[in-house]
Amino acid sequence: MPMRWNNMDKARAYRRLRRSEKLPNLAEVLNAERMESWVIPGGGGLDYYYGASLLTPEIIDNLQALANEQQLVRKYLAMVKGEKFNTGENRRVLHHLTRGNVNGRARDENGFNIGKFYRDEYHRISQFVKQVYRSKVQTSWGLPFDNAVQIGIGGSDLGPRALALALQGSCEQKFPCHFVSNVDPHDVLQVRQQIDPSRTLVILVTKSGTTQETLANHRLLNRWIKHHLSPDADVSYHTVAITSQTSPLVNSKDVRIPFYIDDNIGGRFSSTSAVGALVLSLAYGPQVFEEILAGAHEADMAAREKDIRKNAALMDAMIGVYNRNILGMPATAILPYAQSLARFPAHLQQLDMESNGKSVNRFGEPVNYPTGPIIFGEPGTNGQHSFYQLLHQGTDIIPLQFIGFRQPPREFEPEADGMENYIKLNANLAAQIIAFAKGRKHENANKNFNGGRPSTILVGDKLTPRALGALLAHYENKIMFQGFCWNINSFDQEGVQLGKILTDSVLAGTAEDETLKTCAKILGIDQLGTSG
Amino acid sequence: MPMRWNNMDKARAYRRLRRSEKLPNLAEVLNAERMESWVIPGGGGLDYYYGASLLTPEIIDNLQALANEQQLVRKYLAMVKGEKFNTGENRRVLHHLTRGNVNGRARDENGFNIGKFYRDEYHRISQFVKQVYRSKVQTSWGLPFDNAVQIGIGGSDLGPRALALALQGSCEQKFPCHFVSNVDPHDVLQVRQQIDPSRTLVILVTKSGTTQETLANHRLLNRWIKHHLSPDADVSYHTVAITSQTSPLVNSKDVRIPFYIDDNIGGRFSSTSAVGALVLSLAYGPQVFEEILAGAHEADMAAREKDIRKNAALMDAMIGVYNRNILGMPATAILPYAQSLARFPAHLQQLDMESNGKSVNRFGEPVNYPTGPIIFGEPGTNGQHSFYQLLHQGTDIIPLQFIGFRQPPREFEPEADGMENYIKLNANLAAQIIAFAKGRKHENANKNFNGGRPSTILVGDKLTPRALGALLAHYENKIMFQGFCWNINSFDQEGVQLGKILTDSVLAGTAEDETLKTCAKILGIDQLGTSG
Repeated sequence: MPMRWNNMDKARAYRRLRRSEKLPNLAEVLNAERMESWVIPGGGGLDYYYGASLLTPEIIDNLQALANEQQLVRKYLAMVKGEKFNTGENRRVLHHLTRGNVNGRARDENGFNIGKFYRDEYHRISQFVKQVYRSKVQTSWGLPFDNAVQIGIGGSDLGPRALALALQGSCEQKFPCHFVSNVDPHDVLQVRQQIDPSRTLVILVTKSGTTQETLANHRLLNRWIKHHLSPDADVSYHTVAITSQTSPLVNSKDVRIPFYIDDNIGGRFSSTSAVGALVLSLAYGPQVFEEILAGAHEADMAAREKDIRKNAALMDAMIGVYNRNILGMPATAILPYAQSLARFPAHLQQLDMESNGKSVNRFGEPVNYPTGPIIFGEPGTNGQHSFYQLLHQGTDIIPLQFIGFRQPPREFEPEADGMENYIKLNANLAAQIIAFAKGRKHENANKNFNGGRPSTILVGDKLTPRALGALLAHYENKIMFQGFCWNINSFDQEGVQLGKILTDSVLAGTAEDETLKTCAKILGIDQLGTSG
Repeated sequence: MPMRWNNMDKARAYRRLRRSEKLPNLAEVLNAERMESWVIPGGGGLDYYYGASLLTPEIIDNLQALANEQQLVRKYLAMVKGEKFNTGENRRVLHHLTRGNVNGRARDENGFNIGKFYRDEYHRISQFVKQVYRSKVQTSWGLPFDNAVQIGIGGSDLGPRALALALQGSCEQKFPCHFVSNVDPHDVLQVRQQIDPSRTLVILVTKSGTTQETLANHRLLNRWIKHHLSPDADVSYHTVAITSQTSPLVNSKDVRIPFYIDDNIGGRFSSTSAVGALVLSLAYGPQVFEEILAGAHEADMAAREKDIRKNAALMDAMIGVYNRNILGMPATAILPYAQSLARFPAHLQQLDMESNGKSVNRFGEPVNYPTGPIIFGEPGTNGQHSFYQLLHQGTDIIPLQFIGFRQPPREFEPEADGMENYIKLNANLAAQIIAFAKGRKHENANKNFNGGRPSTILVGDKLTPRALGALLAHYENKIMFQGFCWNINSFDQEGVQLGKILTDSVLAGTAEDETLKTCAKILGIDQLGTSG
């Protein structure tokens, strides 16, 4: 039977959901038994608890029916097999193959084995990393490298950066790695203060090889490195690239070695590809990166299950659809109770908002329902002393996605025993779930908490590389299921193009729109001179 | 005439706004003349451009009328004079006095001059800083300090941290200062790797002297410092406190010197008080901090103007009210085109969402309209490669607040000349404003941009301390005007209390709610042991 690609509002189950009974009173229905038993293993040791959501068994049945009508799991499996799911760009979507052979052998038109290509590139990278460790890879003056700077932006930055930070708690850092993304020169200039230019390995990440910011940052950093090398040194020894085989960087005289990615992996889904592999393997060792891959693969396997009550990513996706489309909630907060996940919400913000912030379906026709929500968040307990006021007592209800771990990532030293603090961290998380769900009546309305504010929790034992890989893949799969449900293409990003075109016209001095020229003037661009 | 405290929906101007004509077509009305001339100086050299908002002259007149009916500027002036505006907590709201004598002489019931108290404390702090610089303040073993760690959370962290980061581009750092906030012990353990414990000055910031996370972090850091001192050294020499005069820290044996704040300044408004003064003066010198104060004072003075077309904070506030209450937009994005403002959106997230995320008016009665929006954001151009997809083509319209500077904060060195990059940065900002406002028609709906997505820009010459102070105060005043308009108390935060109570019950083992106990079990607290 051929695949169906219908808009969500055509689904019978969606119409049933729209008509369904009023919300459960969360304060009443949420009890210990529901809290404890509404749980799904998500792979990599993660458990997804959803008892504090605004669901009833009947709503879950309807969400299952909706998932079936929209063929979410079937589409996932077909995607992993290599069907062209990125219709707008006529590409496959194969990031799953970087971490496992999920469903076999995706080949392109010429019979080329794409999964093998990813594995081979990863093998080249891990060999390269070992050579860097052994000082076999050197500068043109024969110095070993002692630090790395990854230059990339968006998908070439947020995921690897968030993961590198997240591993600080559990893993020994083997090699200092820094990140530069913003074209604001401040970003390069700050990183510069932390590194020895004569020993810096630059990892230049741009799939197309043409990303404006990334190339400008590479020029800026390179100029400074060159300034600190002896005149006969070759600065190109300092740069390796991660790019596609058709990119201008492949044969660039500024690049020592290219490592390859391809168009079947979108930037925001590329953390487990070469884009994350080199910097994370270098920072923590290839073994750690392979544990991330293993955890991600476990989550990918868990997402193949058709029963929504046994598929954490699918349940998470459908709860999101329910909150967004039936309850009309505009945003979702991501609240990790782990300081080392400080940048994980920023990664998810990209992953989700760039994938599903779309107004047309995969055939380019406008959809009649809201799609991707706003995603924002900060680690707890910090947020509790900040924006949680609005989450508790604001006029809008914002569903919450908590992330927590039962134990600290490693043992404490006696002189810095943080167990008291860690217990406080988790006690706060437990308390927040109940405070949001159940509230508290108070005769003073200013001190009253209505409750009924839904949340879910992803809980792992420890924030290990494996758990981190599963966390990453859980959200990738959740977002992809939502995209299928909304019948949109989650894998292109046409919304970023217009800004690029207008920017180029300002820089080239060919802007025709008088308002644009005025904006440029307001921002001092005529005073600063122009630049190509 | 006594002050009126009416809910916004009682205002005639509000009802006119609700009935008003359909939206202007932004792509049509926005031309060079409007872009350039719809501008208000905001103090500190900042210009607030609002031509790309969804306003018409008629709507502005109605917003002026609404501001008049709700007596926004009159209330601001009365607040600064010392009337008790924080009704819920029966306190004044006097952070403006930390940076100028705006309207004179706020005294308490006993005739005590509160502005003078703030100035005197700042004088003590700047003297202390100079003594640290001159190595006159020493450890008990006679070592000079060479680094500082500020421990605080929420209002004792986000503002000072965001400002410290923001000054990196323009100012020479005189003294390395770090920040710790999260009770997750990872936060302390990471900072620990960057400092010499025998030379660490700890700045302990908690107004009440009882903030759970802050005290736990102080214990953890102190234990580690002590471990590295000789047995006869006195670890209390390492800690100064910023706290209220009634706090248990005032006479604590763990504290060397207390500096004082008082209850008339709320945490999130305390960046220009002692809470920000010590760490920022230490990091960059008292002169730099005084420039921040001067800039903030200029913005405060600019906010006294009654004509909305001449008061940037008031216009910004009323545009926010219009977007939220008339157009139904749930969020606002803060998008600084300056990498050093990376944490400024997180500060504003607290400032805005904690102040105005309320559902009851200042008399504790429920309000019938949405109040504070969701605030989120990341620096450009990073965001362009991330969540801007949804901002351009998502199903919801999210109003945007851009921040930019005409020139880089200081001159570039020849070997690291970032001017090409800086021009690209500002060209991108100019392009985004036009792309959002005007869009672009395309026969392929997936490549089509409807436009009509409103924005405003705050533009300064350079991101100097003065501009930064004005930026800070602009938003404080904007948020306060909105609170007055919505008739809510922007200065309390009852929404954070319930979580604290439930956390304490978990930690004390006295939790009665079975669901809460189950949550604690899910998070492994029974395995970890309990803690007081």
